[in-house]
Amino acid sequence: MANITKKVSWSSRHDEPGATGEGTPLLNGSEQPRYSRQLSGGGIFQIGRLSTVDLDEEVASDQDHLRSRPKEIPHNEKLLSLKFESLDYDNSENQLFLEEERRMSYIGFRCLEISRWVVCGLIGFLTGLIACFIDIVVEQLAGMKYQVVKQNIEKFTEVGGLSISLILWAVLNSAFVMVGSIIVACFEPIAAGSGIPQIKCYLNGVKIPRVVRLKTLLVKVGGVICSVAGGLAVGKEGPMIHSGAVVAAGVSQGRSTSLKRDFKIFEYFRRDTEKRDFVSAGAAAGVSAAFGAPVGGVLFSLEEGASFWNQMLTWRIFFASMISTFTLNFFLSIYNDKPGDLSSPGLINFGRFESDSVEYNLYEIPLFIAMGAIGGLLGALFNVLNYWLTIFRIRYIHRPCLQVMEAMLVAAVTATVSFAMIYFSNDCQPLGPDHSEEYPLQLFCADGEYNSMATAFFNTPERSVRSLFHNQPGTYNPLTLGMFTLTYFFLACWTYGLAVSAGVFIPSLLIGAAWGRLFGILLASITSSGSIWADPGKYALIGAAAQLGGIVRMTLSLTVIMVEATGNVTYGLPIMLVLMTAKIVGDYFVEGLYDIHIKLQSVPFLHWEPPATSHWLTAREVMSSPVTCFNRIEKVGTIVDVLSYTSTNHNGFPVVMHHAASDEPAKLCGLILRSQLIVLLKHKVFVELARSRLTQRKLQLKDFRDAYPRFPPIQSIHVSQDERECMMDLTEFMNPTPYTVPQETSLPRVFKLFRALGLRHLVVVDDANRVVGLVTRKDLARYHLGKHGLEELQLAQT
Amino acid sequence: MANITKKVSWSSRHDEPGATGEGTPLLNGSEQPRYSRQLSGGGIFQIGRLSTVDLDEEVASDQDHLRSRPKEIPHNEKLLSLKFESLDYDNSENQLFLEEERRMSYIGFRCLEISRWVVCGLIGFLTGLIACFIDIVVEQLAGMKYQVVKQNIEKFTEVGGLSISLILWAVLNSAFVMVGSIIVACFEPIAAGSGIPQIKCYLNGVKIPRVVRLKTLLVKVGGVICSVAGGLAVGKEGPMIHSGAVVAAGVSQGRSTSLKRDFKIFEYFRRDTEKRDFVSAGAAAGVSAAFGAPVGGVLFSLEEGASFWNQMLTWRIFFASMISTFTLNFFLSIYNDKPGDLSSPGLINFGRFESDSVEYNLYEIPLFIAMGAIGGLLGALFNVLNYWLTIFRIRYIHRPCLQVMEAMLVAAVTATVSFAMIYFSNDCQPLGPDHSEEYPLQLFCADGEYNSMATAFFNTPERSVRSLFHNQPGTYNPLTLGMFTLTYFFLACWTYGLAVSAGVFIPSLLIGAAWGRLFGILLASITSSGSIWADPGKYALIGAAAQLGGIVRMTLSLTVIMVEATGNVTYGLPIMLVLMTAKIVGDYFVEGLYDIHIKLQSVPFLHWEPPATSHWLTAREVMSSPVTCFNRIEKVGTIVDVLSYTSTNHNGFPVVMHHAASDEPAKLCGLILRSQLIVLLKHKVFVELARSRLTQRKLQLKDFRDAYPRFPPIQSIHVSQDERECMMDLTEFMNPTPYTVPQETSLPRVFKLFRALGLRHLVVVDDANRVVGLVTRKDLARYHLGKHGLEELQLAQT
Repeated sequence: MANITKKVSWSSRHDEPGATGEGTPLLNGSEQPRYSRQLSGGGIFQIGRLSTVDLDEEVASDQDHLRSRPKEIPHNEKLLSLKFESLDYDNSENQLFLEEERRMSYIGFRCLEISRWVVCGLIGFLTGLIACFIDIVVEQLAGMKYQVVKQNIEKFTEVGGLSISLILWAVLNSAFVMVGSIIVACFEPIAAGSGIPQIKCYLNGVKIPRVVRLKTLLVKVGGVICSVAGGLAVGKEGPMIHSGAVVAAGVSQGRSTSLKRDFKIFEYFRRDTEKRDFVSAGAAAGVSAAFGAPVGGVLFSLEEGASFWNQMLTWRIFFASMISTFTLNFFLSIYNDKPGDLSSPGLINFGRFESDSVEYNLYEIPLFIAMGAIGGLLGALFNVLNYWLTIFRIRYIHRPCLQVMEAMLVAAVTATVSFAMIYFSNDCQPLGPDHSEEYPLQLFCADGEYNSMATAFFNTPERSVRSLFHNQPGTYNPLTLGMFTLTYFFLACWTYGLAVSAGVFIPSLLIGAAWGRLFGILLASITSSGSIWADPGKYALIGAAAQLGGIVRMTLSLTVIMVEATGNVTYGLPIMLVLMTAKIVGDYFVEGLYDIHIKLQSVPFLHWEPPATSHWLTAREVMSSPVTCFNRIEKVGTIVDVLSYTSTNHNGFPVVMHHAASDEPAKLCGLILRSQLIVLLKHKVFVELARSRLTQRKLQLKDFRDAYPRFPPIQSIHVSQDERECMMDLTEFMNPTPYTVPQETSLPRVFKLFRALGLRHLVVVDDANRVVGLVTRKDLARYHLGKHGLEELQLAQT
Repeated sequence: MANITKKVSWSSRHDEPGATGEGTPLLNGSEQPRYSRQLSGGGIFQIGRLSTVDLDEEVASDQDHLRSRPKEIPHNEKLLSLKFESLDYDNSENQLFLEEERRMSYIGFRCLEISRWVVCGLIGFLTGLIACFIDIVVEQLAGMKYQVVKQNIEKFTEVGGLSISLILWAVLNSAFVMVGSIIVACFEPIAAGSGIPQIKCYLNGVKIPRVVRLKTLLVKVGGVICSVAGGLAVGKEGPMIHSGAVVAAGVSQGRSTSLKRDFKIFEYFRRDTEKRDFVSAGAAAGVSAAFGAPVGGVLFSLEEGASFWNQMLTWRIFFASMISTFTLNFFLSIYNDKPGDLSSPGLINFGRFESDSVEYNLYEIPLFIAMGAIGGLLGALFNVLNYWLTIFRIRYIHRPCLQVMEAMLVAAVTATVSFAMIYFSNDCQPLGPDHSEEYPLQLFCADGEYNSMATAFFNTPERSVRSLFHNQPGTYNPLTLGMFTLTYFFLACWTYGLAVSAGVFIPSLLIGAAWGRLFGILLASITSSGSIWADPGKYALIGAAAQLGGIVRMTLSLTVIMVEATGNVTYGLPIMLVLMTAKIVGDYFVEGLYDIHIKLQSVPFLHWEPPATSHWLTAREVMSSPVTCFNRIEKVGTIVDVLSYTSTNHNGFPVVMHHAASDEPAKLCGLILRSQLIVLLKHKVFVELARSRLTQRKLQLKDFRDAYPRFPPIQSIHVSQDERECMMDLTEFMNPTPYTVPQETSLPRVFKLFRALGLRHLVVVDDANRVVGLVTRKDLARYHLGKHGLEELQLAQT
């Protein structure tokens, strides 16, 4: 357990020095580390001790002990990492901001509104283009690969020596995956996986370093192409969501820090609040392009991210979604030589479910619910296995070369298993007149027949899903489906979490479709009158929904995505019932896959609601204290010292005011952020200098926007000894009206305020408006409902 | 202008005395009337004057003048009525509440959660049943009526004397409408119209008296049956939303105050916050049953009401929606002798749009957008006409008998116009082989033909819509459609706002479908190759969407409702584009119909965002002051006097604490509501009594819940002269941690806090935590963006 590096974590990388700002302990360090609390409850929170605040005596003794070993604490779900910073979804309404807003005319606001629409349109368009690019390249590469292998197999089927084909296949797969894995593991580890957990965190308000950078996008797109072409049990849909989010974050800022280009547009949007709204739109556009589900995309964004619903914002998000799916559809129709045909709105196309043929009956509903329960169970099993695997990976497979090797191994094994399954399968089916199979493998089948197992394995997963949904009854025999489900389940489980860009949606759908179809076939064979159960495709769809719901545990958005992907609202009710059952059953055992991964990264994620039994706690127990405060007019030296003091790394500082005449205690009069102080120091906004150089340009909001979001660390700012003696007037720059709560406020009430307004710092005051503490995201995220009631997570630097 | 009564207003009725609590000026009276502000700005707000607070000198002179004439101020959109109270969507977390929460175990919370699901299931089920009942009764009654009239027409077509048929038709219609109008106008005026504006207000946090009572539901259901059977240009869909909301409010409380039955269940849900959540679910269930659109229902609830999105809540709302449409479908299938057939999920059924036949092409999109613009224009025209009409009605038609007579007149005119249109139309069409027309009228057509105009007029509007969508090309000739659009447009416009329960969805769809189909036919006749434009049904659908969007201006939810009602996601993009265009074009001229009616009722409605240019204003300018405060331990006499003082009618009182020793000014230590004080007074929770009678039962949360929501007025509580000298300790009952803002907070910031948390009172404090003012809904709703920049609405008692 000692050799934990931070390579596998989202939060930081060794090879990136502090110079860039993000990820440095200084700038993005935590609020005050709370070692005192860390051990006091012994992991499990003891309610009885909370009403007292007598924990201070433990601090001194424990502190040294703890400081020596934070590295030893492994990633696990009982920790909250202090590495993750919050985003500030509450505007700092300082004087500069208010002046700007007040200067702006009504026409100005209209123009802003129009540019928001323009940005959303651009986001949708670019996301659609990226989806289109991925789709075409994957199809070309996979097509080439399967052609080569197929020819090879056909050649060797007759002469013998199919092991050469196997090797060819495995090598081709591994080569693709190697490329994809290397760029991910070595250049941008954050691009691994589907990116959905990261986007969830971002929208929740957690700053995940480098998650919306251009480099991440490039690696993501390249990685997903390689991993899908490499035949892994992955989908290209999840990464689209991340890609859309990156596009949104880039476009909305009107510049690229990576490319060092500033287009001087959309400067107004350079703050966390505005950026978040656009990232929501980008994620929605990604879902929309992936599944052809614009409404589902909007709901995904809302379900996973937003907490405040706003009609115009939602409508803009929907606009981005629509443009995205439309762009994809338009370009794909040109690519497919059917311009103007609007029938492929997403990367995955479930094919057309005609309502006449596949209507369901009332008495089938209990069966659907049973399938939902199966999906929930299998999903929970999948998640548990993947959880163990992820812990194993965090502990032992953290070096890039090991990660690449593991990915290549998985690719080779996938090819081998597939080959073996196809080889030993003797499920031969006659080739249909219309040759609906893309790459029919004859192998040992008679002429005019093809190997049925190969349609499932020797194909991109998207096509396999479609075949399972729509192929005629009798295309697959039950044994084939059973074997396929079994092997693919474990392959997919092993694959998720590799250092490759890849989504889990399609593998889940595929597993579910396979056992769903099996379920349908068995049902038809049991019942005597085969006619009404005749269509196993319907059961494949329900199975797919059940399995996906059991793994990811999404609710409304997934229902709508599935309905939109089938293009038929008839299945709304059964899909909802199935997802509901799968979620209830699955939640009984373990959380959803994304939540597991978020927890394993120790992200301070705020859920929808505070733990139910947390009314015991008040702000007094929850808050961090004592708080470092500044005076309204503060000495530069003090500020520099506080900012440089590495062990605290506060990001928000209450500003207080002493009444000169009386000796009343200081009252809260504002809140200033580390990033604002940095900009002030950089521009040397000192009282003395302002007096001497009267013509000096006044600091404007633009200066803060230019520095956003990569504020330099304090070390890079040189402050001379003379300057240290100067004073800085914070009045103009602090937020003069931070939200506050009294000490007696209950945790749920604090939580509600914090979550609803997307705060980063919430000042706790006493009845005379004096600062007594500060509540941050980590203070709230620490409490969660465990098996033994309310538990408190430990905080760690890991 | 002098004879304004309040009969036509939502807020109060003359015939209901103060005894029931709601609607009395005392209990539901306003926060402090702000006469001083009322005239100071002269209607239009003058920014320049705001930074000073020197308005006080004007008060004395203006006050008497103003008091004398509040009755004279007509309902108009430049007023905010003080009659409307707020709902309290922020829990009062007093000691009683916290104790209860802390006593509750984790299991207890799980049970609560489960009962929430049960309630939602019940809401869905009952809403579905009501929809089913309405549908069947309307079908039977309308069927009987049309049969009788048809036979009569057939009889007199040959012998002459069709005027007798006309009279029969007109009398039948008027009779139905008379019944519907009498129950609405005389028994429950709040049940008039679609109820959507009222539910919007309720979800927004405005207490509309009697809006969720059982009596309202009964009148609504009876009224809608009569008005639809009476052949008015109305739909039965809008009222379903209101009905669902009433069902939800009733079921979730586990009792009916009207029936005086208390089932002693769901007592935990007896507060505004919980009730609102269920009402959201009820409204969603109503939409779902009306249009067969469960997802659209959820989105409707969110778009019109909620501001805080919560995954589990949304999922529950969706559950209620699904159950509702399923229940309706199930019972309708039994009624139609096709048990198990799940093809009629809503009251309105757009019929099946098969994707093959009606796909659209890229080059049609500009046409769709043009249709959207037409829809926006026509919608704006509709709204403007209806606005004038409503003003006229408010001024002159406010007595029930006049209202009933107007409704009967409209019914008779509708019948006459329809008859005339049919009579003078010579558009004969051959009867199809399958007799798809329900009541084909032959009139003067040849045998085997029927009058085409009659399919549009001589039918329930739902069927007419479906015919316009799906009848074969060539069924209608352009003149018929043009005439129909024209007449129906004015009829529908005249009808909306009558004292009958009726929705505007279906008439809008019908108008739009008619001109849309006309558009399609003209297009086909212009273009040479008729084949691609061959299907006018597609244009009818787009026209329907455009017209509806132009009138109601809903966005995402309407898109989804339309898509779900067509059962085909292919039309998602064009419908979105059309609705977007219609909204943009329409908003340029006038607001949506519901918003117009809300404004005309002077409801203090909080929109999504504060006016864009309101950063000028701070809490200091916005708040009401001075504020009546209570001491933590207050004399009973003082409390009774304050509560009885009719001219202020505060509902929330900050509780302050004087430090006994020093002469420091009083600090805020809590907030107590009028309703809580009333309960305390009723139970005589006095300090002296508690001392003397030690065994007295402690007041519990249950006592407050039992009194909810109809708290008695202060007059009904007898307090003896001795008791007036007692003291009351408010500590246990006040909310000890009300949200506060400093005086310098900008209006947008105040607004955001207020709206996001659904507050009713927001205390404004100075830097020493002393109360300086109180912000309520009316203080925020007053400001809106008019043509001349920021405007301030006047407050009036009307």
